[in-house]
Amino acid sequence: MIIIKQDDAVVTVPMDMEGVEGVFKKVLIGPDDGSDTIVMRHFRVAPGGHTPFHSHEFEHVVRVINGRGIVYGGPGQEREVTSGQSLFVPGGTMHQFRNSFEEPFDFLCIIKHQD
Amino acid sequence: MIIIKQDDAVVTVPMDMEGVEGVFKKVLIGPDDGSDTIVMRHFRVAPGGHTPFHSHEFEHVVRVINGRGIVYGGPGQEREVTSGQSLFVPGGTMHQFRNSFEEPFDFLCIIKHQD
Repeated sequence: MIIIKQDDAVVTVPMDMEGVEGVFKKVLIGPDDGSDTIVMRHFRVAPGGHTPFHSHEFEHVVRVINGRGIVYGGPGQEREVTSGQSLFVPGGTMHQFRNSFEEPFDFLCIIKHQD
Repeated sequence: MIIIKQDDAVVTVPMDMEGVEGVFKKVLIGPDDGSDTIVMRHFRVAPGGHTPFHSHEFEHVVRVINGRGIVYGGPGQEREVTSGQSLFVPGGTMHQFRNSFEEPFDFLCIIKHQD
């Protein structure tokens, strides 16, 4: 059975984690839909907000779908990204998504399902 | 090292497979970028085009990013999808993406990296 989901049918949860400010998360497709291997999340970073500056073993595949933001990888590694760009964050790489702009910054962040 | 990619920096390849008509593919993020677990592809189905009606063991996580199309799952299972919707196609499920409209139908299709 093919599942089709509207964004507004998915619950939005504020991210509650150390180092987070103004970030909202939706699990668009994940284990509850029967996905065993891939989880696709939607993150919205409000103006002035940011994800934690952190790293983890799993990889991120990211697609910016609305607005623009800053990807921060450490001192001197600050790059602007905009809607329609694709990103890859290897496992073990420090990273942070920031919104220094006036519009919401939205991206899909896809990870392997963590067993 | 975080990788940032522009769509127009990625080669577009016409899909050459039985049952395909008017479909163009880009691997946005994949093994060449160092991704060991996830591959994010972009497919464009031209007006009148379609992917093969087929199934395979691996799952698809799909995000429609432009236009609209038809997801066909077999007789009586034909549903319209539009930009901003998310889909899950379980492993072993017959599926086909068709474009019966006048604008290009674009979607991201994310799969587990096949070893």
